[in-house]
Amino acid sequence: MQLQAISIADKLAKFSEQWSPKVIAQMNDYHLKLVKFQGQFVWHDHQQTDEVFVVLAGEMTIHFRDGCVRVKKGELFVVPKGVEHMTSAASECQAMLIEPAGTVNTGDTQGEMTAPVESWI
Amino acid sequence: MQLQAISIADKLAKFSEQWSPKVIAQMNDYHLKLVKFQGQFVWHDHQQTDEVFVVLAGEMTIHFRDGCVRVKKGELFVVPKGVEHMTSAASECQAMLIEPAGTVNTGDTQGEMTAPVESWI
Repeated sequence: MQLQAISIADKLAKFSEQWSPKVIAQMNDYHLKLVKFQGQFVWHDHQQTDEVFVVLAGEMTIHFRDGCVRVKKGELFVVPKGVEHMTSAASECQAMLIEPAGTVNTGDTQGEMTAPVESWI
Repeated sequence: MQLQAISIADKLAKFSEQWSPKVIAQMNDYHLKLVKFQGQFVWHDHQQTDEVFVVLAGEMTIHFRDGCVRVKKGELFVVPKGVEHMTSAASECQAMLIEPAGTVNTGDTQGEMTAPVESWI
Protein backbone atom coordinates (compact mmCIF):
# COMPACT_ATOMS: atom_id res chain seq x y z
CA MET A 1 0.00 0.00 0.00
CA GLN A 2 1.41 3.36 -1.06
CA LEU A 3 1.02 5.90 1.73
CA GLN A 4 0.33 8.86 -0.50
CA ALA A 5 -2.92 10.72 -0.97
CA ILE A 6 -4.24 11.33 -4.48
CA SER A 7 -4.55 15.01 -5.31
CA ILE A 8 -7.52 15.63 -7.59
CA ALA A 9 -6.01 18.93 -8.80
CA ASP A 10 -2.68 17.27 -9.62
CA LYS A 11 -4.45 14.56 -11.58
CA LEU A 12 -6.58 17.11 -13.47
CA ALA A 13 -3.40 18.93 -14.48
CA LYS A 14 -2.07 15.78 -16.14
CA PHE A 15 -4.41 15.78 -19.13
CA SER A 16 -6.36 18.10 -21.38
CA GLU A 17 -8.11 15.59 -23.65
CA GLN A 18 -11.86 15.96 -23.51
CA TRP A 19 -14.54 13.25 -23.29
CA SER A 20 -11.98 10.64 -22.29
CA PRO A 21 -12.25 9.63 -18.63
CA LYS A 22 -9.00 8.95 -16.77
CA VAL A 23 -8.90 6.50 -13.88
CA ILE A 24 -7.32 7.86 -10.68
CA ALA A 25 -8.32 5.26 -8.09
CA GLN A 26 -9.92 1.88 -7.62
CA MET A 27 -12.24 0.87 -4.78
CA ASN A 28 -13.27 -2.79 -4.88
CA ASP A 29 -14.42 -3.25 -8.49
CA TYR A 30 -15.22 0.42 -8.97
CA HIS A 31 -13.19 3.16 -10.59
CA LEU A 32 -12.97 6.83 -9.75
CA LYS A 33 -12.34 8.74 -12.96
CA LEU A 34 -11.75 12.33 -13.96
CA VAL A 35 -13.15 13.76 -17.16
CA LYS A 36 -13.06 17.12 -18.95
CA PHE A 37 -15.61 17.97 -21.58
CA GLN A 38 -17.29 20.74 -23.51
CA GLY A 39 -20.08 20.58 -26.07
CA GLN A 40 -22.48 17.69 -26.44
CA PHE A 41 -21.92 13.98 -25.89
CA VAL A 42 -23.95 11.18 -27.47
CA TRP A 43 -27.21 9.74 -26.16
CA HIS A 44 -26.56 6.46 -24.37
CA ASP A 45 -27.42 4.42 -21.32
CA HIS A 46 -25.71 1.95 -19.02
CA GLN A 47 -27.87 -1.15 -18.70
CA GLN A 48 -25.88 -2.61 -15.82
CA THR A 49 -25.06 0.31 -13.57
CA ASP A 50 -25.87 3.65 -12.06
CA GLU A 51 -23.31 6.37 -12.78
CA VAL A 52 -22.24 9.21 -10.46
CA PHE A 53 -21.13 12.62 -11.70
CA VAL A 54 -19.44 14.92 -9.16
CA VAL A 55 -18.77 18.32 -10.75
CA LEU A 56 -15.37 19.74 -9.77
CA ALA A 57 -15.25 22.84 -12.00
CA GLY A 58 -17.76 24.57 -14.23
CA GLU A 59 -21.19 23.09 -14.75
CA MET A 60 -22.86 20.46 -16.88
CA THR A 61 -26.33 19.56 -18.01
CA ILE A 62 -27.53 15.98 -18.02
CA HIS A 63 -30.32 15.62 -20.53
CA PHE A 64 -32.95 12.92 -20.27
CA ARG A 65 -35.71 12.17 -22.75
CA ASP A 66 -38.21 13.85 -20.43
CA GLY A 67 -36.22 16.64 -18.81
CA CYS A 68 -32.78 17.71 -17.72
CA VAL A 69 -30.77 18.59 -14.63
CA ARG A 70 -28.01 21.15 -14.26
CA VAL A 71 -25.11 20.09 -12.05
CA LYS A 72 -22.70 22.77 -10.88
CA LYS A 73 -19.35 22.73 -9.11
CA GLY A 74 -19.78 21.11 -5.71
CA GLU A 75 -22.88 19.20 -6.76
CA LEU A 76 -23.42 15.60 -7.77
CA PHE A 77 -26.02 13.53 -9.55
CA VAL A 78 -26.66 9.82 -9.86
CA VAL A 79 -27.88 8.70 -13.29
CA PRO A 80 -29.90 5.52 -12.69
CA LYS A 81 -29.00 2.42 -14.66
CA GLY A 82 -30.85 1.92 -17.90
CA VAL A 83 -31.90 5.56 -18.22
CA GLU A 84 -30.91 7.16 -21.51
CA HIS A 85 -28.99 10.38 -21.04
CA MET A 86 -26.77 12.87 -22.83
CA THR A 87 -24.32 15.20 -21.13
CA SER A 88 -23.41 18.68 -22.30
CA ALA A 89 -21.48 21.72 -21.14
CA ALA A 90 -21.39 25.21 -22.67
CA SER A 91 -17.82 25.73 -21.44
CA GLU A 92 -15.36 23.17 -20.15
CA CYS A 93 -16.63 21.17 -17.23
CA GLN A 94 -14.45 18.98 -15.04
CA ALA A 95 -16.05 16.11 -13.19
CA MET A 96 -15.33 12.97 -11.22
CA LEU A 97 -17.14 9.80 -12.25
CA ILE A 98 -17.78 6.87 -9.97
CA GLU A 99 -18.79 3.66 -11.73
CA PRO A 100 -17.80 0.00 -12.03
CA ALA A 101 -14.42 -0.68 -13.59
CA GLY A 102 -14.91 -1.43 -17.27
CA THR A 103 -17.89 0.89 -17.73
CA VAL A 104 -17.78 2.28 -21.27
CA ASN A 105 -18.38 6.03 -21.50
CA THR A 106 -20.85 5.64 -24.34
CA GLY A 107 -22.63 2.67 -22.79
CA ASP A 108 -24.21 0.50 -25.45
CA THR A 109 -23.75 3.20 -28.09
CA GLN A 110 -20.26 2.47 -29.45
CA GLY A 111 -18.92 5.15 -31.76
CA GLU A 112 -16.26 7.74 -32.31
CA MET A 113 -16.81 9.16 -28.82
CA THR A 114 -16.11 5.79 -27.20
CA ALA A 115 -13.00 6.07 -25.00
CA PRO A 116 -10.70 3.44 -23.48
CA VAL A 117 -12.05 2.14 -20.17
CA GLU A 118 -8.72 1.65 -18.41
CA SER A 119 -6.76 4.84 -18.99
CA TRP A 120 -4.97 5.49 -15.67
CA ILE A 121 -3.21 8.73 -14.87
CA MET B 1 -36.21 10.12 -10.85
CA GLN B 2 -35.87 13.50 -9.18
CA LEU B 3 -34.22 15.99 -11.54
CA GLN B 4 -32.31 17.86 -8.88
CA ALA B 5 -28.60 17.87 -8.23
CA ILE B 6 -27.30 17.18 -4.73
CA SER B 7 -25.33 20.08 -3.30
CA ILE B 8 -22.52 18.83 -1.08
CA ALA B 9 -22.35 22.20 0.74
CA ASP B 10 -26.10 22.19 1.41
CA LYS B 11 -25.90 18.68 2.81
CA LEU B 12 -22.90 19.55 4.99
CA ALA B 13 -24.89 22.46 6.43
CA LYS B 14 -27.61 20.08 7.60
CA PHE B 15 -25.69 18.46 10.43
CA SER B 16 -22.97 19.17 12.96
CA GLU B 17 -22.72 15.80 14.69
CA GLN B 18 -19.23 14.36 14.46
CA TRP B 19 -18.13 10.80 13.66
CA SER B 20 -21.57 9.91 12.34
CA PRO B 21 -21.66 9.53 8.54
CA LYS B 22 -24.77 10.79 6.77
CA VAL B 23 -25.88 9.21 3.49
CA ILE B 24 -26.49 11.67 0.65
CA ALA B 25 -26.73 9.40 -2.39
CA GLN B 26 -26.87 5.79 -3.50
CA MET B 27 -25.19 4.31 -6.57
CA ASN B 28 -26.02 0.64 -7.14
CA ASP B 29 -25.40 -0.91 -3.71
CA TYR B 30 -22.96 1.79 -2.64
CA HIS B 31 -23.53 4.85 -0.48
CA LEU B 32 -21.96 8.28 -0.70
CA LYS B 33 -21.76 9.68 2.83
CA LEU B 34 -20.62 12.91 4.44
CA VAL B 35 -18.85 12.94 7.78
CA LYS B 36 -17.42 15.57 10.11
CA PHE B 37 -14.90 14.67 12.74
CA GLN B 38 -12.20 15.95 15.04
CA GLY B 39 -9.92 14.05 17.40
CA GLN B 40 -9.21 10.36 17.19
CA PHE B 41 -11.41 7.51 16.04
CA VAL B 42 -11.01 3.87 17.03
CA TRP B 43 -8.77 1.31 15.34
CA HIS B 44 -10.79 -0.93 13.07
CA ASP B 45 -10.87 -2.58 9.68
CA HIS B 46 -13.44 -3.53 7.08
CA GLN B 47 -12.99 -7.18 6.14
CA GLN B 48 -15.31 -7.02 3.14
CA THR B 49 -14.54 -3.72 1.45
CA ASP B 50 -12.20 -0.95 0.50
CA GLU B 51 -13.19 2.50 1.77
CA VAL B 52 -12.69 5.84 0.01
CA PHE B 53 -12.13 9.10 1.86
CA VAL B 54 -12.41 12.33 -0.17
CA VAL B 55 -11.47 15.31 2.00
CA LEU B 56 -13.77 18.31 1.43
CA ALA B 57 -12.50 20.66 4.15
CA GLY B 58 -9.57 20.61 6.54
CA GLU B 59 -7.29 17.62 6.67
CA MET B 60 -7.14 14.20 8.23
CA THR B 61 -4.55 11.59 9.04
CA ILE B 62 -5.19 7.94 8.39
CA HIS B 63 -3.00 5.88 10.69
CA PHE B 64 -1.94 2.34 9.87
CA ARG B 65 0.03 -0.02 12.07
CA ASP B 66 3.11 0.63 9.95
CA GLY B 67 2.75 4.27 8.91
CA CYS B 68 0.26 7.01 8.17
CA VAL B 69 -0.96 9.23 5.38
CA ARG B 70 -2.16 12.82 5.56
CA VAL B 71 -5.12 13.64 3.33
CA LYS B 72 -5.93 17.30 2.73
CA LYS B 73 -8.83 19.14 1.12
CA GLY B 74 -9.07 18.11 -2.52
CA GLU B 75 -7.27 14.81 -1.94
CA LEU B 76 -8.54 11.29 -1.58
CA PHE B 77 -7.30 7.96 -0.29
CA VAL B 78 -8.50 4.39 -0.64
CA VAL B 79 -8.11 2.26 2.48
CA PRO B 80 -7.78 -1.35 1.27
CA LYS B 81 -10.12 -3.93 2.73
CA GLY B 82 -8.86 -5.78 5.74
CA VAL B 83 -6.24 -3.19 6.63
CA GLU B 84 -6.49 -1.90 10.18
CA HIS B 85 -6.67 1.89 10.34
CA MET B 86 -7.53 4.79 12.64
CA THR B 87 -8.52 8.25 11.46
CA SER B 88 -7.72 11.49 13.25
CA ALA B 89 -7.94 15.23 12.72
CA ALA B 90 -6.43 18.04 14.80
CA SER B 91 -9.29 20.38 13.85
CA GLU B 92 -12.60 19.54 12.25
CA CYS B 93 -12.29 17.69 8.97
CA GLN B 94 -15.16 17.20 6.53
CA ALA B 95 -15.02 14.28 4.15
CA MET B 96 -17.05 12.22 1.71
CA LEU B 97 -17.00 8.47 2.11
CA ILE B 98 -17.70 6.00 -0.68
CA GLU B 99 -18.42 2.46 0.47
CA PRO B 100 -21.02 -0.28 0.20
CA ALA B 101 -24.39 0.44 1.77
CA GLY B 102 -24.45 -1.07 5.23
CA THR B 103 -20.77 -0.52 5.95
CA VAL B 104 -20.35 0.09 9.68
CA ASN B 105 -18.08 3.04 10.52
CA THR B 106 -16.22 1.06 13.15
CA GLY B 107 -15.99 -2.10 11.05
CA ASP B 108 -15.74 -5.16 13.24
CA THR B 109 -14.97 -3.05 16.31
CA GLN B 110 -18.44 -2.29 17.68
CA GLY B 111 -18.47 0.29 20.45
CA GLU B 112 -19.61 3.70 21.54
CA MET B 113 -18.30 5.25 18.31
CA THR B 114 -20.44 2.94 16.19
CA ALA B 115 -22.95 5.02 14.21
CA PRO B 116 -26.16 4.09 12.37
CA VAL B 117 -25.42 2.88 8.84
CA GLU B 118 -28.53 4.32 7.16
CA SER B 119 -28.78 7.91 8.35
CA TRP B 120 -29.90 9.88 5.27
CA ILE B 121 -29.88 13.64 5.10
